[in-house]
Amino acid sequence: MINIGIVGATGYGGRELLRLLIGHPQARLVAAASTSVADKPLGQELPAFNKLIDLEFESFDAASLAQRCDVVFVGVPGKASMAPVAALREAGIRVIDIGPDFRLKDTGAFHRYYGADHTAAHLLEESVYGLVPWYRDRLRDAQLVAVPGCYPISAILPLRPLMEAALSDIPVVIDSISGISGAGKTPSEAFHFPEMNENLKAYKLGLHQHTPEIEQELLHKVTVQFTPHVAPLTRGILTTITVRPQHLFDPTPFYARYSDEPFIRVLGEGRLPEIRYVRASNFCDFGWVRDERTGNLLIVSAIDNLMGGTAGMAVQCMNLMFGLEETTGLRWGGMAP
Amino acid sequence: MINIGIVGATGYGGRELLRLLIGHPQARLVAAASTSVADKPLGQELPAFNKLIDLEFESFDAASLAQRCDVVFVGVPGKASMAPVAALREAGIRVIDIGPDFRLKDTGAFHRYYGADHTAAHLLEESVYGLVPWYRDRLRDAQLVAVPGCYPISAILPLRPLMEAALSDIPVVIDSISGISGAGKTPSEAFHFPEMNENLKAYKLGLHQHTPEIEQELLHKVTVQFTPHVAPLTRGILTTITVRPQHLFDPTPFYARYSDEPFIRVLGEGRLPEIRYVRASNFCDFGWVRDERTGNLLIVSAIDNLMGGTAGMAVQCMNLMFGLEETTGLRWGGMAP
Amino acid sequence: MINIGIVGATGYGGRELLRLLIGHPQARLVAAASTSVADKPLGQELPAFNKLIDLEFESFDAASLAQRCDVVFVGVPGKASMAPVAALREAGIRVIDIGPDFRLKDTGAFHRYYGADHTAAHLLEESVYGLVPWYRDRLRDAQLVAVPGCYPISAILPLRPLMEAALSDIPVVIDSISGISGAGKTPSEAFHFPEMNENLKAYKLGLHQHTPEIEQELLHKVTVQFTPHVAPLTRGILTTITVRPQHLFDPTPFYARYSDEPFIRVLGEGRLPEIRYVRASNFCDFGWVRDERTGNLLIVSAIDNLMGGTAGMAVQCMNLMFGLEETTGLRWGGMAP
Amino acid sequence: MINIGIVGATGYGGRELLRLLIGHPQARLVAAASTSVADKPLGQELPAFNKLIDLEFESFDAASLAQRCDVVFVGVPGKASMAPVAALREAGIRVIDIGPDFRLKDTGAFHRYYGADHTAAHLLEESVYGLVPWYRDRLRDAQLVAVPGCYPISAILPLRPLMEAALSDIPVVIDSISGISGAGKTPSEAFHFPEMNENLKAYKLGLHQHTPEIEQELLHKVTVQFTPHVAPLTRGILTTITVRPQHLFDPTPFYARYSDEPFIRVLGEGRLPEIRYVRASNFCDFGWVRDERTGNLLIVSAIDNLMGGTAGMAVQCMNLMFGLEETTGLRWGGMAP
Repeated sequence: MINIGIVGATGYGGRELLRLLIGHPQARLVAAASTSVADKPLGQELPAFNKLIDLEFESFDAASLAQRCDVVFVGVPGKASMAPVAALREAGIRVIDIGPDFRLKDTGAFHRYYGADHTAAHLLEESVYGLVPWYRDRLRDAQLVAVPGCYPISAILPLRPLMEAALSDIPVVIDSISGISGAGKTPSEAFHFPEMNENLKAYKLGLHQHTPEIEQELLHKVTVQFTPHVAPLTRGILTTITVRPQHLFDPTPFYARYSDEPFIRVLGEGRLPEIRYVRASNFCDFGWVRDERTGNLLIVSAIDNLMGGTAGMAVQCMNLMFGLEETTGLRWGGMAP
Repeated sequence: MINIGIVGATGYGGRELLRLLIGHPQARLVAAASTSVADKPLGQELPAFNKLIDLEFESFDAASLAQRCDVVFVGVPGKASMAPVAALREAGIRVIDIGPDFRLKDTGAFHRYYGADHTAAHLLEESVYGLVPWYRDRLRDAQLVAVPGCYPISAILPLRPLMEAALSDIPVVIDSISGISGAGKTPSEAFHFPEMNENLKAYKLGLHQHTPEIEQELLHKVTVQFTPHVAPLTRGILTTITVRPQHLFDPTPFYARYSDEPFIRVLGEGRLPEIRYVRASNFCDFGWVRDERTGNLLIVSAIDNLMGGTAGMAVQCMNLMFGLEETTGLRWGGMAP
Repeated sequence: MINIGIVGATGYGGRELLRLLIGHPQARLVAAASTSVADKPLGQELPAFNKLIDLEFESFDAASLAQRCDVVFVGVPGKASMAPVAALREAGIRVIDIGPDFRLKDTGAFHRYYGADHTAAHLLEESVYGLVPWYRDRLRDAQLVAVPGCYPISAILPLRPLMEAALSDIPVVIDSISGISGAGKTPSEAFHFPEMNENLKAYKLGLHQHTPEIEQELLHKVTVQFTPHVAPLTRGILTTITVRPQHLFDPTPFYARYSDEPFIRVLGEGRLPEIRYVRASNFCDFGWVRDERTGNLLIVSAIDNLMGGTAGMAVQCMNLMFGLEETTGLRWGGMAP
Repeated sequence: MINIGIVGATGYGGRELLRLLIGHPQARLVAAASTSVADKPLGQELPAFNKLIDLEFESFDAASLAQRCDVVFVGVPGKASMAPVAALREAGIRVIDIGPDFRLKDTGAFHRYYGADHTAAHLLEESVYGLVPWYRDRLRDAQLVAVPGCYPISAILPLRPLMEAALSDIPVVIDSISGISGAGKTPSEAFHFPEMNENLKAYKLGLHQHTPEIEQELLHKVTVQFTPHVAPLTRGILTTITVRPQHLFDPTPFYARYSDEPFIRVLGEGRLPEIRYVRASNFCDFGWVRDERTGNLLIVSAIDNLMGGTAGMAVQCMNLMFGLEETTGLRWGGMAP
């Protein structure tokens, strides 16, 4: 049994972590810190978990968490995890951060896209990017894991194998559509139900903070135009990638490396993914089309942004870090319907 | 490990069963029969389960299933399970039927509401109504289980304790709202997305086949007016019950018997359930209000029709039948969001 | 051409009024007052109306509005219209209030359900309840119109004819399901898209402020149990009414009076309404079922809460007040899909 | 008063036409032909229009329609309008076809994308592409109008002005997201509510029949990669266009020509459209971003696929053809919410 702590358990990423950890056969949740609801029973604040777990929210105390836990998950908004993660690492405890603060190795890019200085840059070297299929070995011993962003997971998994050999120095257009849970739990006019229901929009064109993360993990071989959209659903990201290689090629061989990945399903040419098949699962599905007429290769991928795109990937990292079977607690098919 | 067979795995109830059984730590799915897709790989027909299970659909063969399985789940449309269940019982195998054919003890009521004669009435005596909180002891040794209907679960759980003492011979109005997955997988004009999205309607007023099931399990002490509605969501049933007792009373003591039920959350007076807290879970949540002005007691309950209302309850029955910890594979909080 | 002013044009009721009035062939919008956005161009604040109307929001000034307008619509939250309506009436201008403040004749009931004293009770006598089919004659000369609430419209239209003769002193159960636009434009956790999407709930059991309004317009002949619910759609109210008369009767003759009503469609026995057929229209559709088994009469009605339930009814009142053809600007079928 | 006939009034495009024409102050619907429901009352088949129009569906008879109507709208599936349009033109009546059969001037492209020979190619010369802002003058005297497809409208309106001078021979990536009404009224597994709700997918990559239509109306100056997606909403198309010009330029001056267009709203740099502001309206809204980092110009447009994308554009054509004020019956703001 691994003893788990969570910091920031009431956000959407945190709630999904709670859901997965409560159902995990080898994890025991022993602490949940949340300043806004400290001292309140978890099951009262989050009625979805009532009668499943008997725990009170507590204030954040790094030393106390370090004493009681084997690992602490941090799920607070961007820029807010630098401080608690630094304190936790100081206290000697392993940390899995589902926020963005420890993903970018380039603090200049962090400053440009997040609008703040990085206050814990000394931890960036030990931070391991928690994209399991590409960092599996380093994750086993990681002390600090930066779980990838949801959009990046949907873009990097299908693109990175192509960077190895076939693609570089070409324009890449990434148009993603996300469910609204990706925008977080804070109510706003934009995501008030009657405004967002039956609505579609694009946002942060050319400015989205996941852009440098994608380019970093594509090894800076390409410049990407990343355009996120939102649609009226709760969970899911569908990403359509358009690239024009010098010569159209068959990407199949490049994806052979994914054949044993437990949570990547390479659908193949002419077969496209849908959110319904990955919902509430840890899977990333993708397929592609070669358009001879235009010379473009089109790749479409699908994930559940909260599970495969955040909390499920985080739990997969944890399983690796503690020597468990990697798929423990995560072997769930898509919830369709 | 229990060896499991499923008959009719492609319907919505069957798919949810597959989802739960694939994630169940002590179940091994060894056979899935479906006439319409026999010989096709399960992961191809149901892409949500691809890469999780290596099985081909097969034609229905009771003897063969009986040889390989410890229990067979049957998930076919109403009136279509009488024949395969009879064959399976003939072959000596334990059966859990998630359809309606073995719920009603009164074949006259079956004929009236389902429009067909019962062709396996000899099995009705051994059939145990799979409402775990009320039939736990009989379920342990059951050879044939009739899993309750989704609407009935939402109505019987809050009402039955009141029948024991407080209520009888009074009118009961049950207005339920269901997600569209309850209507099954067959496409129709009524549930074509552009028709049902942003729509609401009531249906089968005075005629719904769950009416006699509710009355049977309320021990025929009351006559219920059951009116189902559909709303544009996929999963969930919210049931509002209005009763006017001779004298308004506090129902709290009658619900004490549920305090140890793992999947019933009695919210109490003035606290009302929502679908979001039970979605993708096995819970039934309910609360109530006493309206002194009108003399009515109002009870509102919420379940996920596919999990708590069908497949989760079925798995809970299976756990009991095979001596497992009753909550195995089912300890999941609501998926919110 | 009638010169129109609107006070409170940015709420959902106000926006729907703007939509209808901009499309109305004999109305000219000359003033829109909204304290929160005074001096801003209407088309900038409400991009849906950009390029259609050239108007700036202004601060509320009763005298100025009275000089420029033939009638002023008021669309502000409950309890907030008493003051501006009194000022406008003082200034001698005809007023159509789409809020609740002038609907209840009984100030005691107003206090009980709205939690405030009525500060303009002297206007309640001249206020005409704007339910066109029942107050058509009085509306022609009305100086102050209180447009009915959305839930009440859906309940009173089918029930009131029955009060005349057939029903009294019997319990009435009204279960309504509303789209989320009924909750107004203010963002909240409850109606944040990821919380409300795929959700259902009941609210304000026994306490909803539309209860006394319904009972008043049912001539205090019955006590109603009114239970509102919300479902994940933007527009629409579906209301299911369960009554148990002394003897089941055929309501058809009582509805003969509606045969010439332009916006009431009496569907008849066994034919039930759906939101899709009334969406974006001024219609109220209803049908019924007599359940011989239980002795209950079940009536189901459907309206678009923003149009037929608020702004469309208000425009119909205006048409009457100014001697226009009653259906002017309102002859729109349901938007399906 | 213009006397109108409709052929194929029960599809989604046809229903929207009916909705607009019933509300049109200078149109009188005199005939509605639909083979599947001939002889049935329109208000019974389409309950949304009950009590508004007294008409029975009839079988298609070109000569009879030509006698009674000034113009006939045709709204039948692709490939099915060649025959009736030819018959109607033979009978000497003006025709507005909302289907695709008379849009492509190149019968080879028609064959490639629609998989059929064109059986009325002699009419292609007289057919005028009904994109009002670009063909206004020719439309006044048109005998046969081919109303543009919904996706093309969303792409051509923002792109065509740029073709005139600034852009040619560069790759264009068009990623569109559509509501499900675009898929038509025929029920299917893909668009069954529980399958499509909470779902996203891309389809027809590299193969969609609107591709050659877009390229034709961009004067064959560019090759477009058009990738359509569907999201869980009923109405609306959001189109994101990514182009990389030789040198990034300010498109503002090229859009000056739209300043007097009644239904195009050029939002400008950094301001992006949303479906909610164009829903149930005839508007096309668009804005753009210049990304200096990548060198790309990104344009995003929004329309209501059924109104601005089909039936509203068709009515605007009709207004022009009969010398009416062009905006008659169409001056409706977006329905938000």
